[in-house]
Amino acid sequence: MSMKLKKLMLALTLTFVGVSLVACATAERGVKPTPMAIQEQGSFAVGGSVVTVPGAYALNSRAPEGQTYHGDHAYVFYQVPKNARKLPLVLWHGFGQFSKTWESTPDGREGYQNLFLRRDYSVYVIDQPRRGNAGRGTVGATITPTPDEQFWFNMFRVGAWPDFYPGVQFSKEPEALNQYFRQMTPDTGPIDIGVNSAAVVALFDRIGPGILVTHSHSGGMGWDAVMKSDKIRGVASYEPGSNFVFPEGEAPAPVTSKFGDLKAVSVPLADFMKLTRIPIIIYYGDNIPSEPSEDLGRDQWRIRLEMARKWADAVNRHGGDVTVVHLPEVGVHGNTHFPFSDLNNVAVADLLSAWLKEKRLD
Amino acid sequence: MSMKLKKLMLALTLTFVGVSLVACATAERGVKPTPMAIQEQGSFAVGGSVVTVPGAYALNSRAPEGQTYHGDHAYVFYQVPKNARKLPLVLWHGFGQFSKTWESTPDGREGYQNLFLRRDYSVYVIDQPRRGNAGRGTVGATITPTPDEQFWFNMFRVGAWPDFYPGVQFSKEPEALNQYFRQMTPDTGPIDIGVNSAAVVALFDRIGPGILVTHSHSGGMGWDAVMKSDKIRGVASYEPGSNFVFPEGEAPAPVTSKFGDLKAVSVPLADFMKLTRIPIIIYYGDNIPSEPSEDLGRDQWRIRLEMARKWADAVNRHGGDVTVVHLPEVGVHGNTHFPFSDLNNVAVADLLSAWLKEKRLD
Repeated sequence: MSMKLKKLMLALTLTFVGVSLVACATAERGVKPTPMAIQEQGSFAVGGSVVTVPGAYALNSRAPEGQTYHGDHAYVFYQVPKNARKLPLVLWHGFGQFSKTWESTPDGREGYQNLFLRRDYSVYVIDQPRRGNAGRGTVGATITPTPDEQFWFNMFRVGAWPDFYPGVQFSKEPEALNQYFRQMTPDTGPIDIGVNSAAVVALFDRIGPGILVTHSHSGGMGWDAVMKSDKIRGVASYEPGSNFVFPEGEAPAPVTSKFGDLKAVSVPLADFMKLTRIPIIIYYGDNIPSEPSEDLGRDQWRIRLEMARKWADAVNRHGGDVTVVHLPEVGVHGNTHFPFSDLNNVAVADLLSAWLKEKRLD
Repeated sequence: MSMKLKKLMLALTLTFVGVSLVACATAERGVKPTPMAIQEQGSFAVGGSVVTVPGAYALNSRAPEGQTYHGDHAYVFYQVPKNARKLPLVLWHGFGQFSKTWESTPDGREGYQNLFLRRDYSVYVIDQPRRGNAGRGTVGATITPTPDEQFWFNMFRVGAWPDFYPGVQFSKEPEALNQYFRQMTPDTGPIDIGVNSAAVVALFDRIGPGILVTHSHSGGMGWDAVMKSDKIRGVASYEPGSNFVFPEGEAPAPVTSKFGDLKAVSVPLADFMKLTRIPIIIYYGDNIPSEPSEDLGRDQWRIRLEMARKWADAVNRHGGDVTVVHLPEVGVHGNTHFPFSDLNNVAVADLLSAWLKEKRLD
C-alpha cells in the first residue's frame, strides 16, 4: 500500500472514529442500548485429544484401567446475531487470561463480544486449552497462588504502581481494578503452542472461514494457527508479544531490553508464506517509548513493537499485507495493553471495523 | 400442602408438559427458533478475598513484597432479556462441572440458559470459586489428570459402561459423549463450601432477589447460601448430593450403601429455620432404585434420594415448603443425573416453569 493510500485510509478511519464518538456520547448520556437480536447461542468443546488406559473397565471401579480422559480442547461460547455477516470473529485471549478479555470491561461497559454482535458479526469467544473453562488438560500442573498484581499492573501498562500513567484509558474506580485482577486465571497445564493452535484450527474447521482476533500471547499462537489453516481469512492482533516467525535464514537478531530480550523464531519458508495470503493488522497502545526505559512495562512493549515492525516488513517483503498501527500515531491516546476494553474501546473497535471494511472482510 | 392439592398440581403440571411437548415437536421438525432479544449481557467476578503481602512494591519487581492477589470469587455470565420477569434465575453447576452444565446440551440442543431466557427470565450462570473461569483461588492445588470417565458415566447414571441404561434420555451419537466428558474441569483449589456459598450470597447482594437453581454438589452448598442470604426467594435443586442440613438433635442416622454412606449434617435450629421461609423443589431422575443395587451409580443416588426425603420432611415439619419430585413418579422417564440437559429437557423445564408459577416466583 502506498503512503498516499495509507494517509487516505487513516483520514477515513479518523472520520469514522469521530462519528462513532458522537454515538458513544449518546450512550453515555444514559440512553438504554437497543436489545441485541441473538439468532443462536451456545457453547462447545473443540479439538483436544483422548487418553485411553488399556484394560477392561470394571463397573463401580475408580481405577484407571479401561478408562478414558478427554482433554486439551478449547472451550467456545458463540453467539450468532440475526442477519449475521458472512465471516464470524473468533476472539482469543492472551497470557493468564480467558474469555473475559472480550466480555464486559473491568469498569462494566460492553467489550468486543457485545460491540461486534451489535455490528452484526457472529462472535466466538474461546478459552484456550488448559485455561478457564477449558481446564481439562491431559498434562498436570501445580498451581501456586503468588501475589503478582502490581507487576501485571505495570506489565499491562496501566501505570507504575501505585500510579496510573497520566491520561491512561483505565477507570480510576477501585472496582475496575478489582475486576481487572480477577480476570486472570491460572493454567491448569503447561502452555503448549501446538496444542493451542490445533484447537483453534479445529474450531475454524468446524465453523468455516472467519476472522481471528488475538491478544498478546495468542498473537504469536495465531500466526501458528494461520500456518495450519486455510480458513482464517484475516487476523487482527492486539499487542502480540511473542512467537514472531520469520523464514529460516531471515530471522533478525533479538531485540534487547535490560528486562529480557525478545528472540525471533524461524520457520520453513513454505509455512511462512501462508502468512502472506491474508490481510493482517496489528495494534499497539500508548506508553510504548522508542528508546529504552527504566520502566519494565514500557520497555517490554518497546521491544515487542520493534519486533512486530520487523515482522510486518518481512511478511510484506514476501508479498503479504500486514499493517502495524501504533495507536498514538493515529491520534488514539492512553491505551493500555488491552485497547479493546479500555475506556475508549468504541473508538478502538471503530478502527477495526474500518479495516475489516477496507479488506472486504465485513 | 395436602395430598389433594399435590395431586391437582401434578395434573396441571402434566397438562403443561403435554402442551410443551407439542411445541418441542414443532421445533424438532426444523423450524428455526425465534431470535432472542437480549437487553443486556456481560460478565463479572463477585465475592472473593484479597491476599496482601506486607512491604513496599518495587517497580519492575516480581517478588511478592507489597503485591496483592485477588481470588476466591465466583465468575458470572449474565443475560437480561427484553421485558424480563422480576426474579432472575441463578444457575449453579455441580461437582467437577462449570457453567457448561446450563449451556448447550452435550448433543447440541438448547440448555436451561437459553430455554429460560426464552421464557423471559434473566439468567445468571456462575462458575464457583476455584473452578473454570473463576480459577484464581487463594489456595493452591495440584492437578493430576486421571482417566475416570467410565466411572462418571455410571455415577451420572447414563448407564453401566459400555451400556447405556435402556431408555436413557441421552444421545447415542459419539459426539454427545465427547462433549459430555469435556464439560468436566478440574478444581484449581480445594472445594470450600463456605467460600463458595459466600460468593453466591455476594452475587444475590449485587443483583437483588432471585431464584437459585442448583445441581448435585451445589445443592447442599445452596442450603448454606439460603441460610446466609435473605435474597434467595426460592430454590430448585436437581439431584442434590450432600450437605443435607438438619437442626441439631434432629439429624437422622446415615443412609447406608455398600459403596459409601451418606451422613446428615447438623446446624443450629435458627439457621435451619431460614430454609423454611422459601419454597424449595427437588428433582431426581430415573434409574434410582428403592432397594440396594450392585450398580454404584444407582445405589449412590438411592441413598441421596432417601436422605432428600428425610430432609424435606424435616423442613416441612418446621413449617417449610419442600417438594421432592422423583421424575418417573410423575411420568417423566429416562433421566440421568443431568435432567436439565437430557433429551427431554424441555419437558423437565416445563415442570420447573409450572412450579415457579404455582409459587408466584415467575
